[in-house]
Amino acid sequence: MRYLCRLAYDGSYFYGFQRQPKFRTVQGEIEQALYRIYSQKIDIHSSSRTDTGVHALDQVFHYDTYIEISLDRLKYVLNGQLPDEISILSVEKVSDDFHARYKTIEKTYRYDIILSKEKRIFENRYALIYKKDMDINLLLEASKLFMGRQDYAALMAAGSDKENTVRNIKSFRVEQKKEDLISIYVCSDGFLYHMVRIIVGALLDYNEGKRTIAELKNGLKNKDRNVFRRTAPASGLYLENIVLDFD
Amino acid sequence: MRYLCRLAYDGSYFYGFQRQPKFRTVQGEIEQALYRIYSQKIDIHSSSRTDTGVHALDQVFHYDTYIEISLDRLKYVLNGQLPDEISILSVEKVSDDFHARYKTIEKTYRYDIILSKEKRIFENRYALIYKKDMDINLLLEASKLFMGRQDYAALMAAGSDKENTVRNIKSFRVEQKKEDLISIYVCSDGFLYHMVRIIVGALLDYNEGKRTIAELKNGLKNKDRNVFRRTAPASGLYLENIVLDFD
Repeated sequence: MRYLCRLAYDGSYFYGFQRQPKFRTVQGEIEQALYRIYSQKIDIHSSSRTDTGVHALDQVFHYDTYIEISLDRLKYVLNGQLPDEISILSVEKVSDDFHARYKTIEKTYRYDIILSKEKRIFENRYALIYKKDMDINLLLEASKLFMGRQDYAALMAAGSDKENTVRNIKSFRVEQKKEDLISIYVCSDGFLYHMVRIIVGALLDYNEGKRTIAELKNGLKNKDRNVFRRTAPASGLYLENIVLDFD
Repeated sequence: MRYLCRLAYDGSYFYGFQRQPKFRTVQGEIEQALYRIYSQKIDIHSSSRTDTGVHALDQVFHYDTYIEISLDRLKYVLNGQLPDEISILSVEKVSDDFHARYKTIEKTYRYDIILSKEKRIFENRYALIYKKDMDINLLLEASKLFMGRQDYAALMAAGSDKENTVRNIKSFRVEQKKEDLISIYVCSDGFLYHMVRIIVGALLDYNEGKRTIAELKNGLKNKDRNVFRRTAPASGLYLENIVLDFD
């Protein structure tokens, strides 16, 4: 049987999602919990691999087992075995050809920016605390560059070796939720490594007068990573929503 | 010169306030920052010593130095030298006979309880996540026991050796701030070790039918710590306000 779990986690307490031998990771914690439940080694397969410090409100993974546990019971037992920073939101059975990564057709990331000249001790791990002046109209203006189907190679962090760098950003929303809180939502069929954080870095560079629209536009067109060197910190980033194809 | 600083901190990231040789503490971080600023060892004296995991929205400390730095500049430099989880809110000069601890005439602690059957991954370090049913009227009823000037010896954690255990609780407020958030405010001239967390533990025991009002009342009267064995977790506790006597 193949089980599909939706989950949320506070990325502050993990060295990213992916299993690593010596560090506490989300995958590592889940696989340890599954081992305690099933008394056998089980590998999980997630939709995304979030980085250290990145949060998730809606991540998914699947795994296989021959041992049957009712869905309600399984959710309860999994949450009991997992640390307080990981919450299993739902568990369902899926067909054997379902795959959390390959059946992901759309993802939304959110990036939170808190505007504050003062330190924000409790929000420091949950947003970018931005001390400079912010003109949200500049963000709105620059955000228009990062829409639609294009080759986004310029927005891929060094060290990544994805061959196909064409992605389709379906929506890009900049929302001032409170006087001191801006949330940026990016929905796409897929993302390159650090892509959202690099986009946010470019918006901030534009806000600070360090880049012009023409520079950003040309950088994108010429796949020039030097124009997009700034990567906003992980703390502000949330994996917000994943759309799966169950057909 | 004697300087008085008000500060706030996120207790999740420290092994309490008090300096300890091998652990990251609030006092340790502040004294290291002062060392970097003044190039000399400076001891600080705080109003309170909060435990591991306890937060502060308004803590105060004083220290002495012969080196003069303007107050605005000092606040700025201190915040720059301190980690993001500690924020200096204000700096002022005080007379040489002022003492942060001995001139504290009143303190308010807040205890936050989030009512949730589900895990609350982002609030787990900032409240008690309470999964059982809650009848706030029971909290209000039991809270009446913990008011006024009395001997609160029954509410002192084992291992503490305070001789005078009489304290004057000036106000005790239970407030349902949202459907799922209860805040308890306790204002007193002073607190015994773990006193607020033990009081909250007693309120929860009463809510769960584990204690009667008579038992709590007699426990207090008879200084019986066995009636007050439950200590609510540190995560929900905030040092909310300190009143100083500047006369």
